[in-house]
Amino acid sequence: MHTQDLDTPAIVVDLDRLERNIAAMSGRVRAAGARLRPHTKTHKTPEVARLQLRHGAAGLTVAKLGEAEVLADAGFDDLLIANELIGASKLRRLARLARRVRVRSCVDSLVGARMLSDVAEAEGLRFAVLLDINTGLNRGGVEPEQAVALGEAIGALPGIDLVGVFSYAGAARGVADAAARRNWALREAGTAVAVARELQARGFGVAEVSVAGTGSAVYAAAVPGVTEVRPGTYVFNDMNYSRMGIGTVAECALRIRSRVISRPAPDRAVIDAGSKVLTTDKRAGDGDDPGYGFIEALPGTRITALWEEHGVLRLDEDGRQLAIGDVVEIIPNHVCPTINLADSWYGVRAGVVEREFAVAARGKTR
Amino acid sequence: MHTQDLDTPAIVVDLDRLERNIAAMSGRVRAAGARLRPHTKTHKTPEVARLQLRHGAAGLTVAKLGEAEVLADAGFDDLLIANELIGASKLRRLARLARRVRVRSCVDSLVGARMLSDVAEAEGLRFAVLLDINTGLNRGGVEPEQAVALGEAIGALPGIDLVGVFSYAGAARGVADAAARRNWALREAGTAVAVARELQARGFGVAEVSVAGTGSAVYAAAVPGVTEVRPGTYVFNDMNYSRMGIGTVAECALRIRSRVISRPAPDRAVIDAGSKVLTTDKRAGDGDDPGYGFIEALPGTRITALWEEHGVLRLDEDGRQLAIGDVVEIIPNHVCPTINLADSWYGVRAGVVEREFAVAARGKTR
Repeated sequence: MHTQDLDTPAIVVDLDRLERNIAAMSGRVRAAGARLRPHTKTHKTPEVARLQLRHGAAGLTVAKLGEAEVLADAGFDDLLIANELIGASKLRRLARLARRVRVRSCVDSLVGARMLSDVAEAEGLRFAVLLDINTGLNRGGVEPEQAVALGEAIGALPGIDLVGVFSYAGAARGVADAAARRNWALREAGTAVAVARELQARGFGVAEVSVAGTGSAVYAAAVPGVTEVRPGTYVFNDMNYSRMGIGTVAECALRIRSRVISRPAPDRAVIDAGSKVLTTDKRAGDGDDPGYGFIEALPGTRITALWEEHGVLRLDEDGRQLAIGDVVEIIPNHVCPTINLADSWYGVRAGVVEREFAVAARGKTR
Repeated sequence: MHTQDLDTPAIVVDLDRLERNIAAMSGRVRAAGARLRPHTKTHKTPEVARLQLRHGAAGLTVAKLGEAEVLADAGFDDLLIANELIGASKLRRLARLARRVRVRSCVDSLVGARMLSDVAEAEGLRFAVLLDINTGLNRGGVEPEQAVALGEAIGALPGIDLVGVFSYAGAARGVADAAARRNWALREAGTAVAVARELQARGFGVAEVSVAGTGSAVYAAAVPGVTEVRPGTYVFNDMNYSRMGIGTVAECALRIRSRVISRPAPDRAVIDAGSKVLTTDKRAGDGDDPGYGFIEALPGTRITALWEEHGVLRLDEDGRQLAIGDVVEIIPNHVCPTINLADSWYGVRAGVVEREFAVAARGKTR
């Protein structure tokens, strides 16, 4: 099938670009001296995870336990849940999962660690955890000054194996200046390594220092003591990253094909992709309003408004040629939640649909 | 099962409130003298549609053909697709659907109408359409001044039955002042009725005048000549509408139960619901930043930041009592895309889960 025969809206992924992106990040991280544990929340697709492993990834990262279960079912056996797991139901599920595959999760509190330890003891196993440190994102994570003391307390719990230190200095994502972003990445990595070394000096086997995302992975991977990095978005790239110079539009592998369904005014077109396809995500504070995605073939045309199932384009001179029935291809601002809205996407090469991929972990928020 | 035993994040709906909301809108629209054709994009759940019909709805509205197919499969036989259908694949599907149920869609161009007419002729049937008029939203729809001429041209096509006039003056949604909103609603309804009467005078059987949403339905229903209104959000209500005085917080039937997974600072908590649960939808231009939803039990606590699978709360004095493991219930800003992220939701009464409902039309963007 040719892409032009796909009904719209549809997500298409250029498989050549996808493979190049995966190979490039693998090569850079390897050259920098760390392992790659890519974050699969960007694609939620087991086949892409398989490609990442084939290109040398040492394991996979997920955001939620439900995503881990999907990947375990698909045969993946080394998973990091980059989140705190809290609540009896989740810990029972974690115990079941821990019997099937190597799984690790994060802790940033003694309260949370005790919950894990209690369930582990009751289940007759031990949970492997990473100590989550706040290195500037101000989301979760223990403050660096309190990290060693918390690590000691957690490491002493009977049901817990404290195997590493974890951080995500995602604030570095928002820094368009590469030198400043590099400094952020180095600071994150340095803080995590310092905590790990102090815990090692106290006799804990914290072998893992896991840091960084797409914007900082290559910098952090070169820091001595960092063992793994967890970029996610690099597989598809998106406009938020391209506008910051993290990746380029030429590296954007994923587009949304959307059809013009109305041409109500010379400078206005309506397309069949709205916020239930593109999401309303828009990076704030960029100065010039970027709109809700980017049409590479019509760079002067903006997606100025989204309704749930309608997108409104403000057309420049070139855009005015758009007629009802024409298809535009949109690079989304933020690719991760966009994929999470779709049941499937189409892998294409040279305009031909090679196959459809199910977003197997879509909606696994628990 | 009690709601406190649900794993998080989970969507819970107070079924008593849901039924009251449905009954109230039905009663008001009936009293005003119009029929109710509720927009099902808010709930995407056949059981709620059934409840709407049981309370007197005259048929159902959907945003996409795929939603119509789900409802037809569930046994509903009178559907309005509130959108333009463009493209060969969609029109073949529409033809199949038109053989099973009474289905209507919208047109706002001769080009689009000809596509419909051609397929109808080839399939040996006629498509019933409503003429979509722009009454101020500036999305799709023909301008009122050109509507009669377009209606005549469309009505003359061999495969088309022009059965009515359609408008959504959604701009009225954004008007917090009730008197101004009423004026908008009356203007929309008046414009649509005027176009319908002109077409009727020219011999077209445009019996239907279909207008308005939750913010304007009751006003528009009272306008002579309006035959049906299409509110959607009223079933659940949400914070965007509550902040505008369209509905109240007490009418908000849907909440997201989310668990505190981290308490990294005295004034900060992290919950397990992020943008992949709540969406980043936030009504702009409200002055005071409302955050990403509202915790009724902690009105001074704000959801200040969302990551994909994390929400960050800035806690006021009351909020500081929140501990790891505690559950908060969040009323979303915009309920429609929130439901579209979930595979299911839980219907509850007095704290007890009555049953789980599948979001059967979730993700049906085509």
